[in-house]
Order: sequence, then structure tokens, then C-alpha cells
Amino acid sequence: MATLSNCFQPLKFSPKRHRFNSTSLFTRRCSVSATINQSKLDILLDSVKWDDKGLAVAIAQHVDTGAVLMQGFANRDALASTISSKKATFYSRSRSKLWTKGETSMNYINICDVFLDCDKDSILYLGKPDGPSCHTGSETCYYTSVFDSLHSSQAEGSKLAMTTLQSLEATILQRKAEISESSTAKPSWTRRLLLDNKLLCSKIREEADELCRTLEDSEEAPQTASEMADVLYHAMVLLSVRGVTMEEVLTVLRKRFSRSGIEEKRSRKLEGS
Amino acid sequence: MATLSNCFQPLKFSPKRHRFNSTSLFTRRCSVSATINQSKLDILLDSVKWDDKGLAVAIAQHVDTGAVLMQGFANRDALASTISSKKATFYSRSRSKLWTKGETSMNYINICDVFLDCDKDSILYLGKPDGPSCHTGSETCYYTSVFDSLHSSQAEGSKLAMTTLQSLEATILQRKAEISESSTAKPSWTRRLLLDNKLLCSKIREEADELCRTLEDSEEAPQTASEMADVLYHAMVLLSVRGVTMEEVLTVLRKRFSRSGIEEKRSRKLEGS
Repeated sequence: MATLSNCFQPLKFSPKRHRFNSTSLFTRRCSVSATINQSKLDILLDSVKWDDKGLAVAIAQHVDTGAVLMQGFANRDALASTISSKKATFYSRSRSKLWTKGETSMNYINICDVFLDCDKDSILYLGKPDGPSCHTGSETCYYTSVFDSLHSSQAEGSKLAMTTLQSLEATILQRKAEISESSTAKPSWTRRLLLDNKLLCSKIREEADELCRTLEDSEEAPQTASEMADVLYHAMVLLSVRGVTMEEVLTVLRKRFSRSGIEEKRSRKLEGS
Repeated sequence: MATLSNCFQPLKFSPKRHRFNSTSLFTRRCSVSATINQSKLDILLDSVKWDDKGLAVAIAQHVDTGAVLMQGFANRDALASTISSKKATFYSRSRSKLWTKGETSMNYINICDVFLDCDKDSILYLGKPDGPSCHTGSETCYYTSVFDSLHSSQAEGSKLAMTTLQSLEATILQRKAEISESSTAKPSWTRRLLLDNKLLCSKIREEADELCRTLEDSEEAPQTASEMADVLYHAMVLLSVRGVTMEEVLTVLRKRFSRSGIEEKRSRKLEGS
């Protein structure tokens, strides 16, 4: 019988080293299964506005980073398969058959949830990829920037589509790469931080303190946003120094918020022993 | 003549209160224009693999939060219009005409960049929405959760598709709402933090310090990820207390990294006066 992920746990407070976990909104275990009501499944599949070829657009998105990984099409069987297998499955129009991303490459997209749009003719597969989602080996299929292509002084743009946080991370990574490549790179604040752990840590503590002061001193809200931006930026430079990605951090957050109360309690006992 | 965004500025270091800005990867001004080479534009438009109806899938994504806002179709004119106007434009198949999101609602999606996928048959509009992107008033069109719909004990799921960071923010917001709704809500760590500014700030400073120690004491990388998760979570609780959203913080980050060197220097002079 088909299964799906369902995990509702109240938030727990541990007086020692608390590990927060959560409820309702955070059911993103992406692997645990529960029983599906088959008639409900049929009703859902019937409700999708399949086009004249029996297809709907299916967009796969990274649950943690938000990156749009790829876009294909799904028919009723592909959607049913996605829901039951928890692996993003599409309908290949060229080969006229179902196709599960990863069936050859092992780079599955593990489904956390599936969404339909307001018109029920577009499907969003929200999941965690096991590896690059593009057959070219790129993390996502969207790496051709139109604006870069059109800029008169550049060749066709090849730049992964990234949201603000990913762009910031990539920029910091670029500064890090420039350190080893060349000593003639232009001076930059990020470069200085990357080369001076003492300065970096001093700044992180300072910015965290300033963030707190915006609350303690009832400063204007925009000041809180500004200080939070400082905390985020400096902390991300530290992540870069340590070779840790934001994706790894977000994965930790998602898993913490998806753990059952029993597991959380058990882990506290282990931590205490 | 059509224009596009292009802003390349080296990183500046200000010994006083530095304001970092960036280069190359962060060209997300989403409004400033530059000249487009018309023949390059034609070549690009020709390179798209329009289907037998002259259409390609066009996905609009929030540049800061990563939320997939909506999905439609674009033809050659719609893509050209999007590039020149910097407003997400689609081709309405039902009305057989071009349609700019926001032309009625004023909720434009302001384009920062456009990407083509590896096969050049899928388009990603990366932009900043002026308001809700769905005609229903929802922030995005994806609010029907398939897994929630199928869960046997729940009614049809109505839950905005969210990435991990957005989900965390929403969970914290939910705890905040529960405080005013009921005093019988289950105890939770988030709730405690929301009600105790002193504890909250103490935790933020503590977690920032622990994050730094993972670098200073050369701890294992997973420990850095774990401490960063703690910093992020606690800082986001503070944001919630202050009524500040992660989107606002990310907007600050994006704008900082997009400012020209001249603007940044000018703002430092103003700050110093």
C-alpha cells in the first residue's frame, strides 16, 4: 500500500542542552511513511487538470536551499508513483514512458511533499536530491543566465540560478578561492575575514551582541534586519572557513524539527550518559 | 532600447563600520538597466526550444526566499517583454495574449535575472514580487499540499509550499500566535524564548560564542553546522519578537551586495558626518 510522510510532534524543552523540535509545519522527514487512503488518492489524481495529452508541468525544488532543480511533465501514473515511492517521477514525452530521476544516475530527488497550484494544473515536487539534478552534472538545470548572455562584453552566461542566500555563499566561496589563486586580488572585507580567524570571531560575537541590543534597547525594526544581515554574513564566512555549507546547516534544522518526541528524549539520555 | 541589470563592483573594506558589498555573482539590483545588444537578443530568443505552439514553461521564483511563486507559459514576445520591461510576462493560453503579472493587481514580479534550463525549453524568472503572486491573494500559487490532503485524519491540506528556512520561520510565528490565543498551549522552548527577552538574548550570545569556538578549537565540521543551526534558530526567534521577516533580512543582504562602489563610499561619508 502506498505510504507518505507524517510526523506531528509537540515541541520539547530540555533544561540541559535543549534540542528543539517541532510540530505540524515541520513534517519534513522525507522518508518515513504512513498509510495512504487509496480512494482519497484517486480523488486527488482526478482533481488534477491534466492537459489534452494527460500531462501537467512538474517542477522539482530543493526543500532546503529552495533551488529549482529541474522541470518536467507528469501524468497521472507519474504523480501516483512519486507519491508512493517518494522519488520524483516524471513522464518522458520523448520516450513515452515514466521516468524516475535517479533511476540511472542514482541521483534521486527524495520527496518531502508535493503541491498543486491554485488551478491544479501545475505540480511542485519538494524534495532533497541525492546528487546533481541535471544530466550534465550541474546541481540544477538552470545555469544559463539570459542577462549574462546579453551583456555585451561577456560570452554566453554560465551561472547557476541562485537565491540571495546561495549567491552570498557563492560570493564568499569565490573570495576564498581567490586567496589561493592570487596574492594580487583586490582587497576585500570578506578576504580579510577569511584570513583572520580572530577578527572573524570577534565580529561574529560583536554582531550577535548588536542584534540582541536592537531588542534590549527597543531600536527600530529595520535596525534588527540590518544587524541580522551582519550576523548572517559573518557567520557564513565562518562556515566557509570550516568548509560547511548552508545546505548542511539547513538539513540539520530540518531534521531537528522532524524528529519524534521519543527520538529526541532518547538522544538526550544518550547525550547525558 | 531594451535594458538589463548589470552591476559589477569590487568588494570594499571600510575600517569604520564597514558595509560589505560585492562583485560579479551579486548583480541583483533588479531595476537598474543597461543596453541590450538587439542581435544577441534575437539569437537568444531563437535558441529557446519553443514547442509546437510556440510556448515554453515559465516559472517565477522569489529571488530572496526561493519560493516558487507561480508557473505559466511564455512565447517569444513574452520573454522579450520580460527582458526589456523587467516585469514577469507570460502568454495566456486561455486569452491568447500576453499577460504581465501585476498589470491589474499591481503585484508585479520585478525581474532580477532570467535563466534557461539545459534543454532551453524551460524558463526561470528570478525576481522580487511587489505583493502576493496568486490571483487568490496567496503569496504563491502552491498552497495545496498533496500529503496533507491524503493524510487520513485531515481535511484537504491548505499549506503554503515552503523551504526549510521559511518553514522554521512559520513555525516560530505559529508559536507566537499561540501565546495570545491560549494559555493552555503545550510548553515549548520556542514559546519560552518568545516570552523571555533576557533568556533569548543570552542564548543568542551563547550560541554565537559556541559557533566561534568550533573554529577556535578546531572542532569537527558537523559541530559547526550544528552550532550555526542553533544561531540561526535563536536569531530567528528574535526576528519574530521584533516582527521582522527573513525576507526583509535577505533583501538587506541582496541590496548591500548590489550597491555600486560609489554609492557605498558616499554612504560612508554620510555615516561619518
